[in-house]
Amino acid sequence: MKMSREMIKNAAGRFVPTEINGEKIVPFKGVGKHLPQNNRHAPKLSSNALFPADGNKHVASLKEALIKAGLKSGMTISTHHHFRNGDLVANKIFDIAHELGIKDLRWFPSASFPCHAHLLQYLEDGTISHIEGSMNGPLGKFCSEGKMKKTAVLRSHGGRYQAVQDGEVKIDIAVIGAGCADSFGNANGVQGESASGLLGFALADSQYANKVIIVTDHLVPFPCVPWQIQGNYVDFTVVVDKVGIPEKIVSGTTNVTKSPDRLLIAEMTARFCEEAGIIKDGFSFQAGAGGTALSIGIFFGEIMRRKGIRARFARGGSNKYLVEMLEEGLVEYILDGQTFDLEGVRSMRENPNHVWTSPFTSYNYHSKGNFAGMVDVVILGATEVDVDFNANVVTHSDGYLLHGIGGWQNCLFSKTVILPIPLFRDRIPVVVDEVTTLCGPGELIDVIVTERGIAINPLRKDLIKTTENSGLPIKTLQELKDEAERICGKPEKPQLDKEVVAAIKWVDGTVIDVVRKVIMPEGRS
Amino acid sequence: MKMSREMIKNAAGRFVPTEINGEKIVPFKGVGKHLPQNNRHAPKLSSNALFPADGNKHVASLKEALIKAGLKSGMTISTHHHFRNGDLVANKIFDIAHELGIKDLRWFPSASFPCHAHLLQYLEDGTISHIEGSMNGPLGKFCSEGKMKKTAVLRSHGGRYQAVQDGEVKIDIAVIGAGCADSFGNANGVQGESASGLLGFALADSQYANKVIIVTDHLVPFPCVPWQIQGNYVDFTVVVDKVGIPEKIVSGTTNVTKSPDRLLIAEMTARFCEEAGIIKDGFSFQAGAGGTALSIGIFFGEIMRRKGIRARFARGGSNKYLVEMLEEGLVEYILDGQTFDLEGVRSMRENPNHVWTSPFTSYNYHSKGNFAGMVDVVILGATEVDVDFNANVVTHSDGYLLHGIGGWQNCLFSKTVILPIPLFRDRIPVVVDEVTTLCGPGELIDVIVTERGIAINPLRKDLIKTTENSGLPIKTLQELKDEAERICGKPEKPQLDKEVVAAIKWVDGTVIDVVRKVIMPEGRS
Repeated sequence: MKMSREMIKNAAGRFVPTEINGEKIVPFKGVGKHLPQNNRHAPKLSSNALFPADGNKHVASLKEALIKAGLKSGMTISTHHHFRNGDLVANKIFDIAHELGIKDLRWFPSASFPCHAHLLQYLEDGTISHIEGSMNGPLGKFCSEGKMKKTAVLRSHGGRYQAVQDGEVKIDIAVIGAGCADSFGNANGVQGESASGLLGFALADSQYANKVIIVTDHLVPFPCVPWQIQGNYVDFTVVVDKVGIPEKIVSGTTNVTKSPDRLLIAEMTARFCEEAGIIKDGFSFQAGAGGTALSIGIFFGEIMRRKGIRARFARGGSNKYLVEMLEEGLVEYILDGQTFDLEGVRSMRENPNHVWTSPFTSYNYHSKGNFAGMVDVVILGATEVDVDFNANVVTHSDGYLLHGIGGWQNCLFSKTVILPIPLFRDRIPVVVDEVTTLCGPGELIDVIVTERGIAINPLRKDLIKTTENSGLPIKTLQELKDEAERICGKPEKPQLDKEVVAAIKWVDGTVIDVVRKVIMPEGRS
Repeated sequence: MKMSREMIKNAAGRFVPTEINGEKIVPFKGVGKHLPQNNRHAPKLSSNALFPADGNKHVASLKEALIKAGLKSGMTISTHHHFRNGDLVANKIFDIAHELGIKDLRWFPSASFPCHAHLLQYLEDGTISHIEGSMNGPLGKFCSEGKMKKTAVLRSHGGRYQAVQDGEVKIDIAVIGAGCADSFGNANGVQGESASGLLGFALADSQYANKVIIVTDHLVPFPCVPWQIQGNYVDFTVVVDKVGIPEKIVSGTTNVTKSPDRLLIAEMTARFCEEAGIIKDGFSFQAGAGGTALSIGIFFGEIMRRKGIRARFARGGSNKYLVEMLEEGLVEYILDGQTFDLEGVRSMRENPNHVWTSPFTSYNYHSKGNFAGMVDVVILGATEVDVDFNANVVTHSDGYLLHGIGGWQNCLFSKTVILPIPLFRDRIPVVVDEVTTLCGPGELIDVIVTERGIAINPLRKDLIKTTENSGLPIKTLQELKDEAERICGKPEKPQLDKEVVAAIKWVDGTVIDVVRKVIMPEGRS
């Protein structure tokens, strides 16, 4: 049974189980309060003597590679999501597992997409016991309705690296789809027909998994340059017809918003940053890929041109707008974690100042610092915010788990964190008394920008001071909440069961909150 | 006492101690015979919470950094040798240690050079107990004469990575000099006045040392791109006036030989490769940096031009000749481990096809393969060879330990290994009955090219066959040895004591041989 009998209150005031899927967990202790006492995960050493002398690790098929890797019931299988909704690798793995009669696999993707709805059948028939990883869409719905055999675990990109590095999640077999590879296993995402930009989300998997399989549809003679994944970690290489559907690899999120409200929010966000003195020569920013965020990037560009300044770096996910800024010289470097369109892929392939990063460099909390803290301002989304700036990014107001955490939690460590969000969505207020699921503690969230006003976290006295005479509509979150409720009425709480269907990890591996089963109107379970 | 009472015969027939400096060792068991049973070294986990929120790890001086890193007696301190004879970092560390009254440090450089003769005083006064790492020049002489307090340990570049990765050598403090760095600790060797090309020899140190200090004379705002060393592993950054003397960083070994004998050897080597069918479209080679090796590279270029073919890749150490071949299109990629001249540095900085590697990618034997095995032909040196093709690369015929192993042992795994060597040096034959120190087993060495004939290892029937009608002077090693002895007489054996002054590790961490104390004519000890 996945229901945990014992629940304790963590430092954020949320009740979390003491164990998940039979393993003890550490409840959230507060930001920066949990210090790891153990050591880095130490995989068994290998020897060149066990590998082909000429470095050729090619095997005939993914099935053969999985069998040679020792696939068996109960294992943990990992994949990455650089192909996004065009991924052809993950479904194939579990088709093979099903065909071989394997059961009870833990799937550990860096994220899942609607294309993985194919796997619902394997969650139902027990081929897959559960998913640990972000679930976008149908799989999240399945999980929300309590249908997954074990409890899902959601981690941020950095938290996923941390979990693998720390040995919290031991990967038995990592299957890494790659746009380009050589037979030794060096691989990248910038070349080939299925180029997805980079392979950073698979870095931890390559370094720490027991067995590593590279799957590509574009094999080049050694050396595959650049090697974003190093063949020295790889056991087998497989060539298939197609690893991804290029037009679906590129996400549909890269269009600037046309909504007048969203444009207003974007403009107010950019103006706020200018008034607060954040946009100055040599500054840095991370805007993200949503329509509003893209517009903010464009407004930033306009301000920079007007001021005659440039940014030292911008963090990706990259897209054509950011690439234009790089090529125009408005941005010196793009430090990129994933490319959201073909221009991003091209730029990363061609421009040495468009640098690929990984969740290790960018987000891993159990290292000696990471890049997130060096970013002057980061623009993030949220599904809900409470009056203490606590935010939710994974569940909707109806309680359904429909989004992953992505790099969201990790980015909260940037110098200024701004959430530009509409005050209500479908007439449901976004500022609430208590968020359905706590993903980020309010102490790390600095500014909420809505179309009807901007709220600054009282902790940020500096920002309050620099913007007090700006003419911007600065309000309290309570005022914004009241305004939303005057228009839409007080929102109803979602109908949730006691059953925990998913745990939300904090960046340090502790459990900050849980997601509970949604009680469906017709009483189905 | 550093003398080991118990000695056992290893698989190469050499007597080696059962322990070195109080630690049990594994005697050499044969090529590919020792499989590691333990796990990768697992350093204690860190947390971002323990590091500055803005990523700035700058401290005022190297002394302060060493104190903050907890420098104390008995520790292991590592450095790299990318600055070669222009290094200003290592001497400084031990000046500080001496000033602080620290004793009994193990110095673990990737190599030492004549500039480090400054450290002899600290070996004598006990600040440094011993060196584990290649010793070029005065330190090797000091060691050979039995003056070091503990036994030296010599490893190949790959063996050094393996020892750190496997936890055989636990580094307390790694001090990494860098041509360029940011205050977070991202660092590279391609930029700045003290550019040395790359920092691959410090990779293991950065990944596994308990504390990591970056020392630079060229600080740039975050991000330092490329980051050959990742700041996520770094504890402290220090800015000094000068980390290296540029004109001494570039080695003096990069001039083509003018000796008629050496040129003949070079030409014969190239001709042998052509006759053997090794030089074909898409082949790969590693020539090295000595005068003869450089000439071989130039001959290779001529053959390739004549044949209208190109090499898929060449392994560095790089130099202006190799860079010219890259720029001419004769070579598609240079996979480089160290740059031997400024042209190498420039090319690595500017040309994406001039790729920096590390001992991990290139040479680590305890991984799932490495690059060495993918190289078609490698050209190496030797101080002595016996009639069974066993070779010595560290001691002279007088028994003095004057060279490091470098990547030599690692390169023996390439598809064809050729040693072009003069038949005698200073009237002392190079082909001997038994090498003074065994560094590489004869089964891995394929061809010896001398000015008076070429010997092919009987194991390489393929090479014997393809060259039998070539008109090349193919002889046996015995014939070559006899010829040398007819000219120079039978060489005298060096006068060696029983005392073991250094151990020679094989690529898998086992001990293949030892170096014994030289008995000096005047009976000094």
